[in-house]
Amino acid sequence: MTANTRAPQQERSRATQQRLLEATVECLVEFGWSGASTTVIAERAGVSRGAQLHHYPTRAALVLAAVEHLSERRAAEIRAEAAALTGDPEDRVEQVIDMLAAAFTGPLYVAALEVWVAARTDLDLKAALIPLEARVGREMHRLTVDLLGADETRPGVRESVQATLDLLRGLGVANLLSDDSHRREQLLAAWKRQLTTAIREP
Amino acid sequence: MTANTRAPQQERSRATQQRLLEATVECLVEFGWSGASTTVIAERAGVSRGAQLHHYPTRAALVLAAVEHLSERRAAEIRAEAAALTGDPEDRVEQVIDMLAAAFTGPLYVAALEVWVAARTDLDLKAALIPLEARVGREMHRLTVDLLGADETRPGVRESVQATLDLLRGLGVANLLSDDSHRREQLLAAWKRQLTTAIREP
Repeated sequence: MTANTRAPQQERSRATQQRLLEATVECLVEFGWSGASTTVIAERAGVSRGAQLHHYPTRAALVLAAVEHLSERRAAEIRAEAAALTGDPEDRVEQVIDMLAAAFTGPLYVAALEVWVAARTDLDLKAALIPLEARVGREMHRLTVDLLGADETRPGVRESVQATLDLLRGLGVANLLSDDSHRREQLLAAWKRQLTTAIREP
Repeated sequence: MTANTRAPQQERSRATQQRLLEATVECLVEFGWSGASTTVIAERAGVSRGAQLHHYPTRAALVLAAVEHLSERRAAEIRAEAAALTGDPEDRVEQVIDMLAAAFTGPLYVAALEVWVAARTDLDLKAALIPLEARVGREMHRLTVDLLGADETRPGVRESVQATLDLLRGLGVANLLSDDSHRREQLLAAWKRQLTTAIREP
């Protein structure tokens, strides 16, 4: 292999991986954990079983890479939306919470939840997922602090940001089977006021 | 059949049902949704396949009955524990939150979460579960209001109680793969103070 052919092949490999990861997320959302078999995922991605096994030798390897991929996509989407927010601090808390609430009730959260729940009783997957989950959790916390412009050195601010993310995690579960948006909007309206007070108060 | 034999038979039926429902919850906790097949559940319960099908003709029927059963058991456990609480209002919020946090990180929550996540992509189960989930949600809200001695006619109190339950739902998810109790306790210490203010303030 020459330098000329290596670069396109690396690109093709990367494109194949991206297709497999996207297909994994889609299949988790559409069919759930038990329906998202490696066969179904390879078909959806339009990738041969051989190529799939070359890139991700086990279902756990594929699913882990997909969780990492979707976490990065989610963070990138949130950052891109955040770049379009207005500067008014009062509005900002409201807009950030709305963005995060959309993320925690959207397909990427649902796909992640399918994996977390399955990993609870799949020891290999669980062992591999725990460090990834911790990292993703820290990054989401950091992102939220940045977006809110919160000062974590002030007492109670860190706990308020954590509670916000855990609340959103719970609202995502409450939205799994039916549209919970009406109740959620009312609840979050109160939450936004509380959070504004908690992170702004001197 | 005479009146003399009918009563014992009804008791036996009820005992068989209880064993099947308990076994369903245990298998969901131990093996997850995909591992908790009707065969595995019948074995665990020590009940024949014929008897199982007589009481619960489908897996969905069995799982639904088990979710109802575990919700009742959870409410009963919480009520029993609540009866032992001291009367001091400040301590009460703290004790109630600790009790609820234990419930939302315990096996009954895990079993319910397995079913909710699976029902998202199982349309028959989902259709049957939605009204049950709504009822269980209302009952848990009512129970929490009672335990806290909260007055929901006052502005913001209803939202604070709802946020408490959604927060606990999220903390249950955060505890799925690893022991999150240290972070949870710190977060809930701050939450107890906030909630006390929200439900006591005039």
